[in-house]
Amino acid sequence: MPTSINLPLIDRLAVIGVGLIGGSVASALKERGLVGHVVGCARNMQTLDMAMERGLIDSSTTNVGEAVSRADVVLLATPVGTMTSLLPQVGEALQTGAILTDAGSTKRRVVDIARNALADQFEHFVPGHPVAGSESSGPAAARPDLFVNHWTVLTPTAETNPASIQKITQLWERIGSHIKIMEVDAHDRVLGMTSHLPHIVAYALVSQLAQQIDQDECLALAAGGFFDITRVAGSDPVMWRDICLDNKEITVELINAYQTILDRIKNSITESDGESLEGLFKAAKLLRNRLETIKTESKN
Amino acid sequence: MPTSINLPLIDRLAVIGVGLIGGSVASALKERGLVGHVVGCARNMQTLDMAMERGLIDSSTTNVGEAVSRADVVLLATPVGTMTSLLPQVGEALQTGAILTDAGSTKRRVVDIARNALADQFEHFVPGHPVAGSESSGPAAARPDLFVNHWTVLTPTAETNPASIQKITQLWERIGSHIKIMEVDAHDRVLGMTSHLPHIVAYALVSQLAQQIDQDECLALAAGGFFDITRVAGSDPVMWRDICLDNKEITVELINAYQTILDRIKNSITESDGESLEGLFKAAKLLRNRLETIKTESKN
Repeated sequence: MPTSINLPLIDRLAVIGVGLIGGSVASALKERGLVGHVVGCARNMQTLDMAMERGLIDSSTTNVGEAVSRADVVLLATPVGTMTSLLPQVGEALQTGAILTDAGSTKRRVVDIARNALADQFEHFVPGHPVAGSESSGPAAARPDLFVNHWTVLTPTAETNPASIQKITQLWERIGSHIKIMEVDAHDRVLGMTSHLPHIVAYALVSQLAQQIDQDECLALAAGGFFDITRVAGSDPVMWRDICLDNKEITVELINAYQTILDRIKNSITESDGESLEGLFKAAKLLRNRLETIKTESKN
Repeated sequence: MPTSINLPLIDRLAVIGVGLIGGSVASALKERGLVGHVVGCARNMQTLDMAMERGLIDSSTTNVGEAVSRADVVLLATPVGTMTSLLPQVGEALQTGAILTDAGSTKRRVVDIARNALADQFEHFVPGHPVAGSESSGPAAARPDLFVNHWTVLTPTAETNPASIQKITQLWERIGSHIKIMEVDAHDRVLGMTSHLPHIVAYALVSQLAQQIDQDECLALAAGGFFDITRVAGSDPVMWRDICLDNKEITVELINAYQTILDRIKNSITESDGESLEGLFKAAKLLRNRLETIKTESKN
């Protein structure tokens, strides 16, 4: 019954931040007939023009209040640093009963700030994080299939309205994503480990490459493992600056734990302790193989 | 003139260690009619049987002396730890004027040990390192196109015979590889940075994943960046144990330098110094983009 499937889920969606994520959500919903009208909001007119040109949004404004005021669903999709500073404006303009969600990579700080900024309407804030992306950023990189077969984590609190959670769950599921409900802090720990720390690790590796005396040879020979490992170091520096600062305690803790493991490896090498080195590498290989199996299975 | 192209470059090749690299060299040469006979040597009969079954080699033996004695070219393709312990046997059996080369990922220690082990015949040792591979290992993973469009680094010393260098250059070029001549220590520095350190970084990341209290959630959400970054942690633990121990000083130095960069990032986060964090990430992104360009150009 295509008519019921194509019944708009959302009448008017406001997307604050029409980059890779915001632009992809907008175009995914539009392509599937799930939204009546999308108003895009960004600081930069060029970004808005590009988003209009690509048909990601139906109208545009640089004014957050104007974008939010008539929307029944509002998606915050800016870097997390900007998000927390926009929340008071958003809270002020949000119409009664409208649902606010976000797509930020860290959740604790945005939840805490939203609780104050939104006051009575906090129950309609459904914190979210689509775990999808690419090193490319901006509306030019947006694509309607970005979320297909990717997790979206929602981190509702005890106060969150169940109907609002359901609506946002539908939003993500209808554009191909799978929903995982997690506690706010568990999200920040798990994503710290699986995403934030790996980005830091990759940025640090590329930084070190820049220090080498044989830099040209290094660049020529970096095509293999180095290339794959550092792929995510092509990601948006501002976005990742904000994530690190936002998830400060957990990130620092994870870097410390990571350095402890590096120390252990370094000691094994210094002491020519082949057995412990091989043991650590073997255990890592086994777990990595398991990851490969999980990934393959999730595709089937 | 296909007849001249197909003229064997090598009459009898001995491959010591018929895993991914040894097996791939053998099959690449055989497929192109560049070798008369390949004798494979390994400790393990199962490995030899698999290599025979797959047609990678023409005959097999577990006896190093026997494999080496009638060969005009000998390729050492075991993990580097095994390599250095085999060199005395190889030196003893090597026929006068025969050329010895290796495919080890580190070069300083094998060169130093070979100088003693080979004595007069050291001039015919052409140290090499094909910078190609995969996380898979063993003869089952061998394939004749493994080296196509990949660098092979040769690190001849002042004593190395130019005709021997030329022959080994031809060997790699005829199976699709590009040759880069480097100093022994420069090789170990550059590969330490572009290959060994990234492997350690990846193994350490996966080790840390194993410590997490939310391990199942971590595994489920590790499909993105974490997955790519840690791909090389599926590599052979024994091979990488040997590489780390063999390239000890450089590896430890690189881990130290890497930790210094992690400290800098950690301090920026702790002090909420967004500017320096963004600066480091931006510089890394620029260099990573350059790497992308270099890789794309090398394919054209």
